[in-house]
Amino acid sequence: MEAKEISQAVISRLPRYFRYLGELRDGGIERISSQELSELMNVTASQIRQDFNNFGGFGQQGYGYNVEYLYMEIGKILGLDKRHNFVIIGAGNLGRALGNYTNFEKRGFILRGIFDNDERCVGQTVRGMKVMHMSNLESFVREHDIDIAVLAIPKTGAAETADRLAAGGIKAILNFAHVDLHVPEGVQVENVHLSDSLMKLSYNINRYQAEKEGQCNAAAHC
Amino acid sequence: MEAKEISQAVISRLPRYFRYLGELRDGGIERISSQELSELMNVTASQIRQDFNNFGGFGQQGYGYNVEYLYMEIGKILGLDKRHNFVIIGAGNLGRALGNYTNFEKRGFILRGIFDNDERCVGQTVRGMKVMHMSNLESFVREHDIDIAVLAIPKTGAAETADRLAAGGIKAILNFAHVDLHVPEGVQVENVHLSDSLMKLSYNINRYQAEKEGQCNAAAHC
Repeated sequence: MEAKEISQAVISRLPRYFRYLGELRDGGIERISSQELSELMNVTASQIRQDFNNFGGFGQQGYGYNVEYLYMEIGKILGLDKRHNFVIIGAGNLGRALGNYTNFEKRGFILRGIFDNDERCVGQTVRGMKVMHMSNLESFVREHDIDIAVLAIPKTGAAETADRLAAGGIKAILNFAHVDLHVPEGVQVENVHLSDSLMKLSYNINRYQAEKEGQCNAAAHC
Repeated sequence: MEAKEISQAVISRLPRYFRYLGELRDGGIERISSQELSELMNVTASQIRQDFNNFGGFGQQGYGYNVEYLYMEIGKILGLDKRHNFVIIGAGNLGRALGNYTNFEKRGFILRGIFDNDERCVGQTVRGMKVMHMSNLESFVREHDIDIAVLAIPKTGAAETADRLAAGGIKAILNFAHVDLHVPEGVQVENVHLSDSLMKLSYNINRYQAEKEGQCNAAAHC
């Protein structure tokens, strides 16, 4: 496939297509039109066609999409045909929750280790895996071919840990620390800022209420 | 403020502005130019001005932005000048992690209860709060003026729980279950799909490597 520049907005939508197609496939559905997929996923058919056209289409006129083929192709685009080794940094509640999340493995993300710098956590087990001290983080990442680190620690220490991960040759960080990381070129970062999500909900609650009140006032004027 | 339609992309960026302005304020900075803010946040100054223009500006020619004022105004836009009561559904590791996250409170999100339908979890405490059985969920939401529910349960049961929350009058759901929720109009949903974030990282790891290899091949041809 040609290395065409695809926008991150399109990329962000691919996992959702992948999820729906996987469910269709598991349900024994062999093909689906863009119209049907559109209704199922609640996006426009034109959006679906545009998104898929970034990768050369996938559809056949009058036939629609072959579910299995489309599922496999999107999986390949997402790199899910390869395994990714990952580690979790932070063995608190969040780190443990993520460590116990077996869905990651089904997608080819294999948990190889959990680290903490709190001596009380070191040696405890998460899903049969002993929590390791962070002193050996860089060499572990290097020696075990770790692609991805999940940063489940508070924002203090996040920058330093990211530097150490980068030094160990990490390729990507899933960052739960509520701070922006500055990483070398070639290290991919996805932020999961939960406070930000709550704030966005707060905004949308307010906006909906303001709109509703606006409508009531408008009606009262009639 | 006029109820102008603001895109969700702009809204998604507001919490980050709010975070940086809060840090500047805490650091005793009184004003900042859009150029300085741009360098700090690693976005273009024109993007910042465009974003703020959605809300009528905030800046004064030749002066820049008053940090305290801008922080307060963005907070108000986000509805953070009001309190939001929230509950957590699911007292597993993820639910516990979120329950212990004190940062939410600083932003006005007040945890009022944690629910689980597993009898073994009911009665256990999370941050001094007893986990409640889900049988009383609707009435609790109604009686305690709960705005937001955090759904920290597996995808089985998520749809039913969302229905019950909606019946109780919930205004918003922060959804960690790996499934799209269908909720009545007026219920806001933010999804945190962690598998999707990992897949996006996987894509970006691949793309970066393909680009690098492409560059090497190109160089070899010279």
